Amino acid sequence: MSKRYEMRFAGSGGQGVILASVIMAEAAVIAGLRTVQSQAYGPEARGGVSKAETVVSREKIWYTKVTAPDFLLALTQASLNTYTKTLAEGAVVMMDDSLDCPETLDKSRVIAIPILRTAKEKVGKAFTANIVAVGAINAALQLFSDEELMEAVKRHIPAGTEEINRKALDAGRELITAGQAAAFAHHLG
Amino acid sequence: MSKRYEMRFAGSGGQGVILASVIMAEAAVIAGLRTVQSQAYGPEARGGVSKAETVVSREKIWYTKVTAPDFLLALTQASLNTYTKTLAEGAVVMMDDSLDCPETLDKSRVIAIPILRTAKEKVGKAFTANIVAVGAINAALQLFSDEELMEAVKRHIPAGTEEINRKALDAGRELITAGQAAAFAHHLG
Repeated sequence: MSKRYEMRFAGSGGQGVILASVIMAEAAVIAGLRTVQSQAYGPEARGGVSKAETVVSREKIWYTKVTAPDFLLALTQASLNTYTKTLAEGAVVMMDDSLDCPETLDKSRVIAIPILRTAKEKVGKAFTANIVAVGAINAALQLFSDEELMEAVKRHIPAGTEEINRKALDAGRELITAGQAAAFAHHLG
Repeated sequence: MSKRYEMRFAGSGGQGVILASVIMAEAAVIAGLRTVQSQAYGPEARGGVSKAETVVSREKIWYTKVTAPDFLLALTQASLNTYTKTLAEGAVVMMDDSLDCPETLDKSRVIAIPILRTAKEKVGKAFTANIVAVGAINAALQLFSDEELMEAVKRHIPAGTEEINRKALDAGRELITAGQAAAFAHHLG
């Protein structure tokens, strides 16, 4: 397995993909790994696509940019269309199931789940979609323990919102089947 | 003037220095600049020091790491002691005035202001210290307009908290004197 794991989180501004990326990086810290979390913005950033990246590694990270992600989360059609063009071989793509899956993707590596609807209807707050996604991502990839992930979430949410965010994490985890977890689990080398 | 401006934001976990860094990067996007915002964590990250970095440039940013910051914000003694060791020549250091200024620093480039006390007593919420800092930073460096900065803040705070955050920005701005603004204003090349 690769010693370096590159993750990209993309959506529209306001969907909180930066926070999702920050939480995954924080979980890596808690798990004792090295990590770099970043946002790079060029002129295209004014178009409303938001993108954040987390690199996780057991070893020192010399090159901090993400070039070919091993994992992509896409919450909007624009971000899905744009960022599925630059993936690592065998990359896992998690997309909201309201989006159209690009023809070019290997469907066996796609996780299409109702992230936005779950946040709105099951958790009851649309703004928790990023936390639902984080719960689903970790259930699929199994990078961190549930405790590490919840601790990471707690470090980056306002005091008093623990319960709604725990509910969002749980709802996200439940979107992933045991079969998906078996297929997509990634063990950092 | 340099075409690339490196900023580092440091404090303890929970002080929101990542958000301060993200907001400065977002303001750069709004102003039409290139920017990279990042957090890199090694094993030392478990010690409770939190660090975030923003690079702002008019040109494409090829090298995304911050090596010698032009600006440092430090909200704790540990972060001040650690990160004043690696500054660019002529760097500006903004520190909470409850901290002891290291002997090695050029005092004419230090802005020591009551960020934490202002957040707690004047704004009335200790957790707004990062936004107070952002207001003070921009008042001193004058990188962005007040409107660009407020828009950047709005994109990264929960709905319904605009007023308290505007108050924090204003309180931060008022910590900077006209003389400091004249001395520290930075015009991106």
